[in-house]
Amino acid sequence: MPLQFAERLNKVETSAIRELFKLLGKPGIISFAGGFPDPAMFDVEGLKEASGNVLNEEPGPALQYGATEGYQPLRDQLSTFMATKGSTVAPHELIVTTGSQQALDLIGKTMISPGDKVIVEGPTFLATIQCFRLYGAELISAPIDAHGVKTDELETLIAQHKPKFVYLIPTFGNPSGAMLSLERRKKVLELAVKYDTLIVEDDPYGDLYFDAPPPPSLLALTDTVPGSRDLLAHCGTLSKVLSPGLRIGWLIAQPALLANAVMCKQFSDAHTSTFAQATASQYLKCGRMPSTLVHVRQVYAERAKAMGDALKRELGDAVAFERPRGGLFFWVRLTGAKGGIKDAGELARRAIEKGVAFVPGAPFYAENPDLATLRLSFATADVAKIEEGIARLGQALNS
Amino acid sequence: MPLQFAERLNKVETSAIRELFKLLGKPGIISFAGGFPDPAMFDVEGLKEASGNVLNEEPGPALQYGATEGYQPLRDQLSTFMATKGSTVAPHELIVTTGSQQALDLIGKTMISPGDKVIVEGPTFLATIQCFRLYGAELISAPIDAHGVKTDELETLIAQHKPKFVYLIPTFGNPSGAMLSLERRKKVLELAVKYDTLIVEDDPYGDLYFDAPPPPSLLALTDTVPGSRDLLAHCGTLSKVLSPGLRIGWLIAQPALLANAVMCKQFSDAHTSTFAQATASQYLKCGRMPSTLVHVRQVYAERAKAMGDALKRELGDAVAFERPRGGLFFWVRLTGAKGGIKDAGELARRAIEKGVAFVPGAPFYAENPDLATLRLSFATADVAKIEEGIARLGQALNS
Repeated sequence: MPLQFAERLNKVETSAIRELFKLLGKPGIISFAGGFPDPAMFDVEGLKEASGNVLNEEPGPALQYGATEGYQPLRDQLSTFMATKGSTVAPHELIVTTGSQQALDLIGKTMISPGDKVIVEGPTFLATIQCFRLYGAELISAPIDAHGVKTDELETLIAQHKPKFVYLIPTFGNPSGAMLSLERRKKVLELAVKYDTLIVEDDPYGDLYFDAPPPPSLLALTDTVPGSRDLLAHCGTLSKVLSPGLRIGWLIAQPALLANAVMCKQFSDAHTSTFAQATASQYLKCGRMPSTLVHVRQVYAERAKAMGDALKRELGDAVAFERPRGGLFFWVRLTGAKGGIKDAGELARRAIEKGVAFVPGAPFYAENPDLATLRLSFATADVAKIEEGIARLGQALNS
Repeated sequence: MPLQFAERLNKVETSAIRELFKLLGKPGIISFAGGFPDPAMFDVEGLKEASGNVLNEEPGPALQYGATEGYQPLRDQLSTFMATKGSTVAPHELIVTTGSQQALDLIGKTMISPGDKVIVEGPTFLATIQCFRLYGAELISAPIDAHGVKTDELETLIAQHKPKFVYLIPTFGNPSGAMLSLERRKKVLELAVKYDTLIVEDDPYGDLYFDAPPPPSLLALTDTVPGSRDLLAHCGTLSKVLSPGLRIGWLIAQPALLANAVMCKQFSDAHTSTFAQATASQYLKCGRMPSTLVHVRQVYAERAKAMGDALKRELGDAVAFERPRGGLFFWVRLTGAKGGIKDAGELARRAIEKGVAFVPGAPFYAENPDLATLRLSFATADVAKIEEGIARLGQALNS
């Protein structure tokens, strides 16, 4: 007899994106599909020095079991790193997680009972949708525009659904690239207090701005909205700016939530790799992060400009989009102008044949998918590849 | 209003052991409490070479996002490592997990619906109990003796409860130190087939034998019991023999279970640190593991002998125990002889005052705890410290 699996597995679907990813092995494909940083920008020399220091200076603790809350030197460094980003966070107010994906998982495990409602942006990060559904969440989509979640409609949804929490990627969202305005940020925190509702701020991309820094994070703004700090959980990561392979993320939250997350983490993976934590800690300590950030921002800014220009040039009014001010993504809508198709899934199939790949937008919606949307990542292709890839996309649209 | 946490948190208790661990900071305490390997035995030079090779030879993939299933070179190396332990496992038949704790978590997430019954040994690994309860399992305890789980009673419990699966640590169990006999191993696999019941074999200690290798693992024995391979899931780890800080474990299971575990892992932590995986892979490739194992076995064998001798000498018939043939633990029962106490919790408190720590056995039982039991780890104290610590334990018993 086949095994009987847990009922919670019925809540998630095999991702349509996965099927598409299988096609990426085709030779010569230019891929805008991934959500990966460019490995050419990893500071390998810095990480070599950092991991060498770890095994010379602290091999015992770095190779041993560690506290579930995180390796203390890294918690100290992350506290300092958060301060450079405008947030006052004591080391004991954050825990280290195995990538920020685990921070999301721990929030789900800690907060969601089957049937609980959770509000997310429409569209939002695909893996968040599945992660929360595995814990039995019923997801409600709040609409967004180029300035992030629409706070009036968010308020209506909060009042109507009384969600367990609201999950947002306020800064250069995945997939939307949208940046929540300062005014709306304050409004979100006011809604948290007014409705006594937890807000989860996922912030993997805030460091990756182009011309000017984004508004302060929701976390940083809690100082300006009395009573909001205890209602704000914040997820951070080193994956986009340093290295995803280290799997270093963190969760900042009020004490009771953090304590329960630690208990859940104890039985999830005991603790995050102390070797990876110690390496990240040595790296942050060595002072190379600021110049790494400057470099990464500059390269992604060039690529984003190239992609925006190429989209205008090659696809014209067949597409509508806002140029992102940071992050890794363009969020594009097919307009159907001049008889072009409006089905991004169909375009994806045609595009593969022309030698370019991207991800259709539909799977990023927890409900009511917009089939005309697609996500383009400019992170891993250089300017020449971006121009060639968007030209191919134009050919696919007209094929 | 305080946050409303998920209902599943009501299933677990704050560990009594945690409270005890807080006392371990007392100066001069000799601790037999941990379940840690001795950091003095970590092959730091070997790991330095391995991580150096990673960043010289494969920095891109080792620092990038990786497949949820695991880093392919490590899957290949683990397949080879399993072969040295008598099991034929193709690389695609195993996935890498963030420590074997995550393998347990993924089994729980994949298999357990709230209310499902799971049979475990009484006593068993504490973190397994809590891990499975978080997914809503109702745990049933199967009794053990020095030869592991009693298979006649196990059969009765399987027939009665029709469990989702049976979880066993057949080789040098934690906390029991017990080694399941070859005869009983075969019987367990026959029960799996007879009752169409999944068996989960957790094997963190099998490499740590003293004088002679243990019987083949349940996994290795599936070859001898037709139909049993698909009903056997196996969890392994490098934590006890190489380094817990790498957090490298693995799960071997039939394809459908493995595929669902991969899906759950995708939303738990995306993947295990590729940097740690690549380091482990380079280490296994470099050929130092066999001599590391010889060294570790020899040191632990000496310490186990010293602890057994000291227990006989210092506590005599006030305690009953079997000498373990491998692993990290003595499992001891207070007999109450000569008017000694039979409450291991009370003894633990007295022992701390005398300068020695251990873990009482009660929390290791999912039901019907035996309050007279205690667990002593001989892993981290040298022979002189073991003798002194057991002498103190004798004083505590008579105080």
